[in-house]
Amino acid sequence: MIKVVLFDTFGTIVDWRSSIAREGKTFAKAKDVEGFDGDAFARAWRAGYRPGMARVTAGERPFVSIDTIYRERLDEILPQFGLAMLDETERDHLNRAWHRLTPWPDSIPGLKRIKSKHMISPLSNGSVMLLATMAKRAGIPWDFIFSSDMHRAFKRNPAVYQNAIRLLGMEPHEIMMTAAHNDDLEAARKEGMRTAYINRPYEYGADQKVDFEATSDWDIIADTVEGVADQLDCPKL
Amino acid sequence: MIKVVLFDTFGTIVDWRSSIAREGKTFAKAKDVEGFDGDAFARAWRAGYRPGMARVTAGERPFVSIDTIYRERLDEILPQFGLAMLDETERDHLNRAWHRLTPWPDSIPGLKRIKSKHMISPLSNGSVMLLATMAKRAGIPWDFIFSSDMHRAFKRNPAVYQNAIRLLGMEPHEIMMTAAHNDDLEAARKEGMRTAYINRPYEYGADQKVDFEATSDWDIIADTVEGVADQLDCPKL
Repeated sequence: MIKVVLFDTFGTIVDWRSSIAREGKTFAKAKDVEGFDGDAFARAWRAGYRPGMARVTAGERPFVSIDTIYRERLDEILPQFGLAMLDETERDHLNRAWHRLTPWPDSIPGLKRIKSKHMISPLSNGSVMLLATMAKRAGIPWDFIFSSDMHRAFKRNPAVYQNAIRLLGMEPHEIMMTAAHNDDLEAARKEGMRTAYINRPYEYGADQKVDFEATSDWDIIADTVEGVADQLDCPKL
Repeated sequence: MIKVVLFDTFGTIVDWRSSIAREGKTFAKAKDVEGFDGDAFARAWRAGYRPGMARVTAGERPFVSIDTIYRERLDEILPQFGLAMLDETERDHLNRAWHRLTPWPDSIPGLKRIKSKHMISPLSNGSVMLLATMAKRAGIPWDFIFSSDMHRAFKRNPAVYQNAIRLLGMEPHEIMMTAAHNDDLEAARKEGMRTAYINRPYEYGADQKVDFEATSDWDIIADTVEGVADQLDCPKL
C-alpha cells in the first residue's frame, strides 16, 4: 500500500521552459534587446543545471543551493543574450524566475486527486523557498516539502532517496517516486521505492535528447499527473 | 519586513492535553479500565518530553525521532494507568495520537490570515510525518514544514534556529518565531529572529509552572494566533 507519493518538480510538475522564456522576454523588451530568443535563453540557462549539480555530487565543491547554481549560470549566459547590463537587483529578480514556474495544465488537478488519498510532496532539487514560493503562487497543494537543501545533496545521489525514506519512517515500497526522467526513477527503484513515469516529451524542446518514453517497466506509466491519479484509483473530485 | 512566520506547534497551535486525554480514555474504556484519569495520563506522558529531548541535546544519545521519545515514555507509564495489556499494534496506534492533535479554536483562522501575507511553517520538535499528518487531518494550512528530524536536533538547541535561517536563505530579522513558551523565543531572539508570544495559560493544566505570561518585551504579545495576525496587520478574511 502506497502512503506517500513524491514528485520531481522541474519538468514533471512545472513547465520551466515556457516560464523562463517569458520572464527573459520581459527583461529583453524592457532593455530594448533586439532579436532576443526566449526559448533559446531558457534552454541555455537550464543547460547549466546538471553540470552545476554534478560538481557538488562529485565532491568538487561543497553543497550549494540550487539558487546559487542557477545564478552562476545566469551570470555566464547574460552577455551572449544581450543582457550583460542587468544590475544586481535585476539579476536577483530574474534568478527567482525559477520560484515562479507555471505547472503543466494537468498537474494541479492530478495532484488534488492524489492528495485526497495519499500524502504528496516534492522530492526535488529545488530549494525550500523555491518550492514553497512556487507552490504558494501556483496553488500546488503539497502536504509537505522535501528540498535539496534539507538533504544537502542533489538527485540522483542515492543519499537524497535514502534520506527521504528515513525521514518518512516507513518502508521504501510504501513510497512512490514520480518523475518525467527515467534516471530519477532508476535511482528511486534502487532504494526500493515504487515508481511512476510521466511522459513529458516537450520539456526540453529542441534540446530534448532522452525521456521521450518510459525505458523500463515502471509501476505506473502515464502521460499526465491525472493519468497517475487514475492508475492509483484516486477518485475524481 | 517579515517574510516568514514560524510557529511552535505543541501547545502553541494544538491543544495536546485534551487530545491525548481523549485518545487515552478511548483505550481505557475499550479495555474496561476503572477510574482512568485522561488528563493525568496526558500530563504524565508529556512529562517525558523535555527529559527525552534533553538527553539528545546533551549528546547522551544520538538523535532519535520525537515519535521514539514519545513511545519510550508511553511504554514507561502504561502500567501505572492500568494499560499494561496493550499490544504492539495498540501501542503504535496510541503513540500516533500525537499525529492527531486538535488545534486551539483560534489557530486555523489566525494562520489563514497570516498566510495571506507571509509564508507560514512550523518550527517544531515534531517529526515530518507527525506534523504533516496533523496538518492534513486538522486543515492546518502550512506553506511548508520544518521538523526536528530535518534538523536532527531539538529546540532549544541553537542549531535548530540556525539551520532554519540557513534553509530560508534570508536575514534572521525577516523571520518571526511564534511560541507559547518564553524560552523558545529567547533562543530564537539570540539568533536574531523577531518574536511573537501567545499566552496559553491552560496548556499544561495542573502541571503548568511557567509561561503564564510574557517574561520579556517580545515584538508581539498576544492571547491567540488571531491576535498575532492583528498585530501583523493581516487582513480579515
